[in-house]
Amino acid sequence: MLFGHGDDIATCEVPIVGNFSSNVWYDGYVADLQNVVSEALTDITSYPEPDARSLRMLLAEVNGVALPNVLVSNGAIEAIYLIAQAWRKSRSLVVVPTFSEYEDACRIHEHELLFLNEDDFVGVIPDVADMVWICNPNNPTGRVWTRNQLLQLLEANPDKLFVIDQSYATFCTEELLHATDVLDYSNLIIIGSLTKCYAIPGIRVGYVVSAADNVAQLLQVRIPWSVNTIAVAVAKHFIVNGDKYPLPLVRWLTQKEQLCEQLAAIDFVEVLPSETPFFLLRLKRGNAAQLKQYLIKEYGLLIRNASNFRGLNASYVRISPQDDAINQKLVNALKQWKP
Amino acid sequence: MLFGHGDDIATCEVPIVGNFSSNVWYDGYVADLQNVVSEALTDITSYPEPDARSLRMLLAEVNGVALPNVLVSNGAIEAIYLIAQAWRKSRSLVVVPTFSEYEDACRIHEHELLFLNEDDFVGVIPDVADMVWICNPNNPTGRVWTRNQLLQLLEANPDKLFVIDQSYATFCTEELLHATDVLDYSNLIIIGSLTKCYAIPGIRVGYVVSAADNVAQLLQVRIPWSVNTIAVAVAKHFIVNGDKYPLPLVRWLTQKEQLCEQLAAIDFVEVLPSETPFFLLRLKRGNAAQLKQYLIKEYGLLIRNASNFRGLNASYVRISPQDDAINQKLVNALKQWKP
Repeated sequence: MLFGHGDDIATCEVPIVGNFSSNVWYDGYVADLQNVVSEALTDITSYPEPDARSLRMLLAEVNGVALPNVLVSNGAIEAIYLIAQAWRKSRSLVVVPTFSEYEDACRIHEHELLFLNEDDFVGVIPDVADMVWICNPNNPTGRVWTRNQLLQLLEANPDKLFVIDQSYATFCTEELLHATDVLDYSNLIIIGSLTKCYAIPGIRVGYVVSAADNVAQLLQVRIPWSVNTIAVAVAKHFIVNGDKYPLPLVRWLTQKEQLCEQLAAIDFVEVLPSETPFFLLRLKRGNAAQLKQYLIKEYGLLIRNASNFRGLNASYVRISPQDDAINQKLVNALKQWKP
Repeated sequence: MLFGHGDDIATCEVPIVGNFSSNVWYDGYVADLQNVVSEALTDITSYPEPDARSLRMLLAEVNGVALPNVLVSNGAIEAIYLIAQAWRKSRSLVVVPTFSEYEDACRIHEHELLFLNEDDFVGVIPDVADMVWICNPNNPTGRVWTRNQLLQLLEANPDKLFVIDQSYATFCTEELLHATDVLDYSNLIIIGSLTKCYAIPGIRVGYVVSAADNVAQLLQVRIPWSVNTIAVAVAKHFIVNGDKYPLPLVRWLTQKEQLCEQLAAIDFVEVLPSETPFFLLRLKRGNAAQLKQYLIKEYGLLIRNASNFRGLNASYVRISPQDDAINQKLVNALKQWKP
């Protein structure tokens, strides 16, 4: 899906002063990257490594796996499409509502699609499915399945391939799957992303960790050079200096709780529970498209119209909390809305 | 093909002092990009435009076409794979020897493949083909088909789709197809690249110009955000300031002629004619793999072993001329080789 995602700032006709539309840590580290990028520039007259080899090695090292267990991709999105392509025409179960790209990638690569609502997903996979796509923590709901729950699934279904997208791994306090679990379960593909926790969606680096055979299958359909020289350098900087950039999750979750409390007090708003900073609102009056336009036009605030997530409808919006001052603007603006 | 291309510096065990292996203008403009990239960095906490919209618009403008005629891709390579995917299972004729990715992309997307040597390609397309892939100027041979020759082909074969890769458009003096020709021929897809003339292979920006219907078909399978924020900014800089960065083709071709003259005087070397700076050598003794290793190990010079181009064999190497001093090193090194 090329259009219809959040963070659609470029299409807004007024300046955006608060952007709740993208599930990305709201405070970036741009200043620290100036030198990194400036140095990397001297290498752009050469091609990048075709498979971002040095970054693969680094990711393998920090994840406790080997080079053949890792693939580097142009954001998690390229990983999703490569997986759908490499296992073309599978029967894919997608746990919804979720990131729409699993479904889109599967459709393009002629999978048969089955959907199961996350509320009904209690660990029993329909026999007919041979692949299962789970976003964990889930976007847009912020639902989390624990490592133990997922290990049981992997154990009980050795003939089904599980794609677990952990792009939001750092956004919850639960124990999730470890990268090293792929060494025990050849039916497990973990997707990771550097976008969310380091606030670098403009850079585009994602990765896959899986059994070497699975990664080899993906490499067969991966185009060369898809992660550019600058992206490789930025990714390495964050991985090597990860200690300097811990996501302040506790603070962010506190800000979220305060925001949710105020929003819940508004009569036409239902706040849905989530285990992540981002969460869904259900509007009891009016709809998401109207609210989005109102907030852009009147306040320069951008939210995610979540009506295009399968399983949701025109009443849903997704909110990724910002700092307290900006959150307060959203609360005040919503209080003024007359749907 | 992930591995086996030129510019494989990262895999060399000694420092490379002369890189003849990549068909890229040898003098870059890195210093001019520091400010561009530094400014673009402030935007990386947001997602890039999903389709690099503002760059699409700029490319449309400078090419005399409209936005719906243009697609921006992660290098020409993403364009090649998207085209093969969107016209999946076609019967594709590839004019060889040529860039191996046309064949690889077609194979992955289950095309039937036909090959025709460029020497035998006199403008008659086998009836059975419904797509034709031509690199013009051709890599690795430097052969050029003129605009008139190609317009005749387009005219005579309205039911066949022509993919003309003009990544090396600025590398020859012949008149090639104009971007606006796509407005007259709906069976024409032109691929372009910013990599070669601006010496930015590390950045990854390519594009497609074609009839709006064709571009729409490509957009349906294109992943969002595949060209990152930095790449968009760098591409815009070169397009807006193109006048500042003219490729000094006449000088480069002169350097090439001088290099070829000296190489041709070496008894085991045959220099093949080309209309571009890059050209092929055929070794009458020894082979390309041996020569490549010798040049790396003894002189830190990197050439392209061209034996993996369909239609060539172990005797071929491809050379992209550098400045006179480095070219002289290659000549001297070759003179010392005892195959």
